[in-house]
Amino acid sequence: MKSKITIDDVNALGIGAGILGTGGGGDPYLEGIQLRRELEKHGSQTLLDPQMIDENVLAVVVGMIGAPTAGIEKLREGTEIIRAVRLLERHLGQKFGAIVIAEIGGANSMGPLVTGLQAGVPTVDGDGMGRAFPELQMCSFLLQGDVTVAPLAMADAGVATAVIPKTKTAVWSERLARNLATSMGATAGLACMVMTGKQVKEYCVPYTVSLACRLGERVIQARAKNEDVSDVIARSLGGKVQLRGKITDVFRRTTRGWAQGNLTVESFSDSSVRLEINFQNEFLIAKENGNVVATVPDMICIVVEETGEPIPTERLYYGARVAVIVVPGAAVLKTSDALQVVGPRAFGYDIEFSPLPGDLPASGEILHD
Amino acid sequence: MKSKITIDDVNALGIGAGILGTGGGGDPYLEGIQLRRELEKHGSQTLLDPQMIDENVLAVVVGMIGAPTAGIEKLREGTEIIRAVRLLERHLGQKFGAIVIAEIGGANSMGPLVTGLQAGVPTVDGDGMGRAFPELQMCSFLLQGDVTVAPLAMADAGVATAVIPKTKTAVWSERLARNLATSMGATAGLACMVMTGKQVKEYCVPYTVSLACRLGERVIQARAKNEDVSDVIARSLGGKVQLRGKITDVFRRTTRGWAQGNLTVESFSDSSVRLEINFQNEFLIAKENGNVVATVPDMICIVVEETGEPIPTERLYYGARVAVIVVPGAAVLKTSDALQVVGPRAFGYDIEFSPLPGDLPASGEILHD
Repeated sequence: MKSKITIDDVNALGIGAGILGTGGGGDPYLEGIQLRRELEKHGSQTLLDPQMIDENVLAVVVGMIGAPTAGIEKLREGTEIIRAVRLLERHLGQKFGAIVIAEIGGANSMGPLVTGLQAGVPTVDGDGMGRAFPELQMCSFLLQGDVTVAPLAMADAGVATAVIPKTKTAVWSERLARNLATSMGATAGLACMVMTGKQVKEYCVPYTVSLACRLGERVIQARAKNEDVSDVIARSLGGKVQLRGKITDVFRRTTRGWAQGNLTVESFSDSSVRLEINFQNEFLIAKENGNVVATVPDMICIVVEETGEPIPTERLYYGARVAVIVVPGAAVLKTSDALQVVGPRAFGYDIEFSPLPGDLPASGEILHD
Repeated sequence: MKSKITIDDVNALGIGAGILGTGGGGDPYLEGIQLRRELEKHGSQTLLDPQMIDENVLAVVVGMIGAPTAGIEKLREGTEIIRAVRLLERHLGQKFGAIVIAEIGGANSMGPLVTGLQAGVPTVDGDGMGRAFPELQMCSFLLQGDVTVAPLAMADAGVATAVIPKTKTAVWSERLARNLATSMGATAGLACMVMTGKQVKEYCVPYTVSLACRLGERVIQARAKNEDVSDVIARSLGGKVQLRGKITDVFRRTTRGWAQGNLTVESFSDSSVRLEINFQNEFLIAKENGNVVATVPDMICIVVEETGEPIPTERLYYGARVAVIVVPGAAVLKTSDALQVVGPRAFGYDIEFSPLPGDLPASGEILHD
């Protein structure tokens, strides 16, 4: 695993996290600009090994909450997350000693690094999803029941802030925070799921910052060597290229604080082979000619076929030439308890989860041939 | 003015506040049951004369926020407001010494009395509207610019709570609080607009609790004496009966945290005379055969023609035999600054405010013949 993030890592991290984000977590382009700026100002950001974390340190999970479609139209003010963190510290009367990434995907891999730099505390090398998911209750930290989403704090791009000290369930926290985010202009900084280092160590999906960097580095290398980039990505994560083709239809709305919709990809080699993919911020279900080929919590990643550049849901467009890569999800998301929260039924699909073989690499290193 | 509220006042207060609520502020029936119960438990509730209030006391404005249509379907848990008050006290690290009524209308006249009883602090005899209005920025306390809506706290009927420490404007506070209320099941307890006794004294619409009680007592007396109750109400407040007739149409939706719509009343004496009234929680504009006869901030009150019982917007029904009474609004609402916030244009109507003659009685006493 990596011990720190430097300015040289930002490009690779953006590519890797964009792929792991399965369409969600926000486009890393704008967040990458800020991360570079903060790294220039503060130097490198320390990554905390989740196996080595002080068990008594107080940690907080952070990210941007809202619809990524709004995130690319509305520039980040830049202190949304740190202001939410400070507000939650004031509310609790305690200081946080570690920043935790809610979801490794896209911009949400970078915001917590920016926040760590601004706060002067390390960011944990790991996250709560091993990918991105659209709702707060889908975090691995919550699965054992001893970590709660609230108390949480939020801050918008202006001066508005909010604290939610308590809710009955994680789903209620999601509901209140999502509607607040919508009222705050569809995106807001969020600090929540306060926990101990011991809980971080036990519940996080480990080493996903390192994994994202390694994956991005490998993509850059593959481009330089003229390798088949899509295939390299699939092999690096233990997945496979499901289809290469052209996006022939996209339906997308920004509604209730998410980017929701579906798209169709038609195979280059055989136009009768079509993949239909549903999304809610993230890609959820892929069907090939009506047959389910991958579902949450396994990962459906869409990249530009030639370059391996990940395409988030808010940037999908008609005519894009893409590869759809399916990758097995992190082990922690596939227990029967976890599937209640992140399986296809949790998203309203009457589909059984049939897992892809294997698990997302858990060591922070990609797979090699 | 009255110095306290006892169990014998509840019935009269409900009638009077229901009339002053101009259709909004929530049906006082359920809240009246709780007020009686709290008065049985704690004895009478002290009313603070706003002219005599300690100028340094810290006061807080309270009420229920949300759609009254939900308020009659979803029983109050009973501690929503006091929990919001306690949460705001914890957030500020200060205790409140006086409870202030946001709007005198309907249930929202009673909730702050219940809260005062639960907290053991007096409730001010006055409010921030001299009626009810659908949005927070319409409170008289805010017109001078030195009182802000946030910090505010909210609590739902379960365990969920929220604090909004700061927003840019009152309208932003309204937006965030309204959407939170919607997420909390369309109604929630609210504590906000923290101010000093001096500010309460200067900005409140004075003696409206007393006025509501006196008005209700007069209605009860008029019923017993077989007087023309609708006419008695109009004369008691310096207004007039605009029309007596039957409700021939009601269109109502619960949307964005309000009960919104319009209704038509057809005159008993001449079916070609029709009054059309628009509402957003409260009655806003009345047009007789297309001509505007009354608008906010003047008051449009609908009562059962025979009994003078006020009908809130959420209980309007086809076929009801009603009197529509128009009453001049409180003086503080009719300055040019105030009209920017509570005049017809503030509600999206391209109509000039042409005031009814006079002002709402400001002494806590009704007008006598």
